[in-house]
Amino acid sequence: MLSERNKILVDSIKRLMRRGAVTHMRKIVNKTHAADLSVVFRSLSLNSQRKLFNMIDDIEKKGILFSELDEDTFLDLVEDIDIDLLVNILQHMKTDDVADLIGKFPLEKSDAILKKMEKEESEEVEDLLRYDDDTAGGIMVPEFIALNENKTAKEAIESIQTEYQDVEMPFYLYVEDQYGSLVGVISLRQLVVVAPGTPLRDFMATDVISVQTGEDQEEVAKIVARYDILAVPVVDEKRHLVGIVTVDDVIDIFRQEATEDILKMAGAGEEFVETKSVMRSTRIRLPWLFASCFGGIVAFYIIGRFEESLTRFIYLAAFIPVIMGMGGNIGTQSSTIVVRGLATGRLNIRDLWSVVFKELSIGLILGVVYGVIIGMVAQLQYSREALAVSVCLAVISSMSIAALVGSFVPMIFARLNIDPAVATGPFVTTAIDIISVLFYFEIATMFLSL
Amino acid sequence: MLSERNKILVDSIKRLMRRGAVTHMRKIVNKTHAADLSVVFRSLSLNSQRKLFNMIDDIEKKGILFSELDEDTFLDLVEDIDIDLLVNILQHMKTDDVADLIGKFPLEKSDAILKKMEKEESEEVEDLLRYDDDTAGGIMVPEFIALNENKTAKEAIESIQTEYQDVEMPFYLYVEDQYGSLVGVISLRQLVVVAPGTPLRDFMATDVISVQTGEDQEEVAKIVARYDILAVPVVDEKRHLVGIVTVDDVIDIFRQEATEDILKMAGAGEEFVETKSVMRSTRIRLPWLFASCFGGIVAFYIIGRFEESLTRFIYLAAFIPVIMGMGGNIGTQSSTIVVRGLATGRLNIRDLWSVVFKELSIGLILGVVYGVIIGMVAQLQYSREALAVSVCLAVISSMSIAALVGSFVPMIFARLNIDPAVATGPFVTTAIDIISVLFYFEIATMFLSL
Repeated sequence: MLSERNKILVDSIKRLMRRGAVTHMRKIVNKTHAADLSVVFRSLSLNSQRKLFNMIDDIEKKGILFSELDEDTFLDLVEDIDIDLLVNILQHMKTDDVADLIGKFPLEKSDAILKKMEKEESEEVEDLLRYDDDTAGGIMVPEFIALNENKTAKEAIESIQTEYQDVEMPFYLYVEDQYGSLVGVISLRQLVVVAPGTPLRDFMATDVISVQTGEDQEEVAKIVARYDILAVPVVDEKRHLVGIVTVDDVIDIFRQEATEDILKMAGAGEEFVETKSVMRSTRIRLPWLFASCFGGIVAFYIIGRFEESLTRFIYLAAFIPVIMGMGGNIGTQSSTIVVRGLATGRLNIRDLWSVVFKELSIGLILGVVYGVIIGMVAQLQYSREALAVSVCLAVISSMSIAALVGSFVPMIFARLNIDPAVATGPFVTTAIDIISVLFYFEIATMFLSL
Repeated sequence: MLSERNKILVDSIKRLMRRGAVTHMRKIVNKTHAADLSVVFRSLSLNSQRKLFNMIDDIEKKGILFSELDEDTFLDLVEDIDIDLLVNILQHMKTDDVADLIGKFPLEKSDAILKKMEKEESEEVEDLLRYDDDTAGGIMVPEFIALNENKTAKEAIESIQTEYQDVEMPFYLYVEDQYGSLVGVISLRQLVVVAPGTPLRDFMATDVISVQTGEDQEEVAKIVARYDILAVPVVDEKRHLVGIVTVDDVIDIFRQEATEDILKMAGAGEEFVETKSVMRSTRIRLPWLFASCFGGIVAFYIIGRFEESLTRFIYLAAFIPVIMGMGGNIGTQSSTIVVRGLATGRLNIRDLWSVVFKELSIGLILGVVYGVIIGMVAQLQYSREALAVSVCLAVISSMSIAALVGSFVPMIFARLNIDPAVATGPFVTTAIDIISVLFYFEIATMFLSL
């Protein structure tokens, strides 16, 4: 297992580090994949990180390591790396990764680095920096193969072998017309199969799937996944090809978007917070709890209004947790299913009413099941039918409303183009808490005073 | 946007279907990508689905559509498709997709289909059926390029152009020794660059990353993502190459695993339930609510034990929701961060104590902040210091314990090799509810009777 392998690697590097076994360590470091080294890195002190980094001989490996590190670790590490070495490493990296890193530096430092880079490379990086981080433009690489439609298959093969040596993943050959607009795509395999003299225009696929530079990265990822392609071309407003987004970045996007959704649903921020600073984590999580605090205070005033009922029927208080808990849990089920269904395309915002109606039905059925169970417990304990019936009805209403609110709110948010994952966090839970408590006391007051 | 495009397509197909505009519809259907057609399919009636399916001319497209459909839709659709056509379609599909579909049929039908398939193809499918669905063996395709290490680059190129025409994604050439064991890997690009007479063994990379047939699919996906490779070779216990897992399947695995984690955390089952049957959904969601129901009943008995305190200080009841809510929400934050951190590799099970300690610190700080706020509200309302202090301390203890339990439980589950996402669902929430209520009443009884 990957985590086993990491453990062994981390342990042996730490042991060698303590023993100061430099030669042995250097051998291991240079044999290990940069992606694995990045795992080791995270569990080392800054001092050890520097030592380890200096042991890496291959400059490309240093670059891969850069792109694998968290922002904090990266900034700590580069602080005392000589700028010439830094520039040299960056020039051996993928352009989109360089743009990501450059964006992390203070302006002064990033300017200095860009000035020292080769002109062509720095221009490419600056081009990418113009686009938002989470758009197609921000995640594309500017290296791709594009040829005029009048070229022959033979000419294309020659071009690929000579001009396009630096294209990292040469899966597709894109075809442009005389105005430089993207008009077709050819897989490298097709290129070898046709007669050498055939012009590209005669065997290219013309229904080429592409995205605009401003397209949201999640959308781009969905397109690559939907059509099972290895790269999607990115075009500007004139349909000129400006870059491609490759499948390896798509994997990262899906993982990142899933993490964001999960954290938002739990009201724990939007990005995974690095585990270094307690204060920073606290600050990010603090505001999300306000909703819950506010809701609790509202519930408190609601219960205060029913003080009279409570004084007469003191045991009403004992059912508050179970009624809130059942509503809260089914509400979380409903909203989670809706949010994830929308994210994966299994649910469609057009089906608002059928989804909400279905959730309401489920809430009602489950409400009856659990309402009867909890009502029976109440009856066993207090032998008072009016209480048992009140508790049963409160559970049914709480669970039905929770399923309704839990599905309706994210669907409506999605329709309004607001991220539904945000709706699912503390806001829905809090609303459900308040409504559950209110209905419970209204029902109980009515039945018990009959 | 993808969803816009789907909407337009669904609308126009439905319109044409109503109008019975067969010729026009046939044109659209055959121009549309199978992946897009699958979206249309989901929102059509079974009858319309059959009509649409019959309009597809390209047999490969029918196959792609098969692999994109949900199990229910697929089984409905194939019910009255002639077995010879069915076999023909299956033989034009990727072997791993065929194995998936065959597994969905009743045994009798799958046997009949396998018998009618070409021998080579049906053997490959049966080979795959031997492996668990969610292991490397279950998701691999048996088509790959593997050659002996003594072959030359020139011979390899010839083999690829002749023997290996059916390999779907020819990214890598795998190299075997005389015993048929996997010993190296070569990218197709390298093959073109070296001198034609060079034996493969002289320029292959020997640190080839591979997985065993029994490896969990999530692990396989992580390996592909970690090393940014397009396919990972799958080997049996003798290190013989038996298949490869390609990057497009890895994307599906990540999306599926993220969905599973999210649903488990919300206690809403493990798989996305198709939105067809209310009863089926109800049955899946019912058991997950038992924990919450059980916890609520325990809380009810706990509160019952403090009936005396409650009778004397009736307003204690009013703070139950806020104390439970604050504990529940911070507990969800902590457990979600831990579960997702473990899933993405940002957190390591070895760091149990530092993670738990950090969460406890955050819980304590946030507990003090919100404890003071809620305590002040209590003081404003009832002007009773003992109550205010009790409520404040109850919030602090509830939030600290929730952060502790919320981080500790999933970490321990992960160490015990139990899926931590399961721990985060109703179980942790319920435990936190019970502890919060218990501490609250213990603290309040102590302070108020002073």
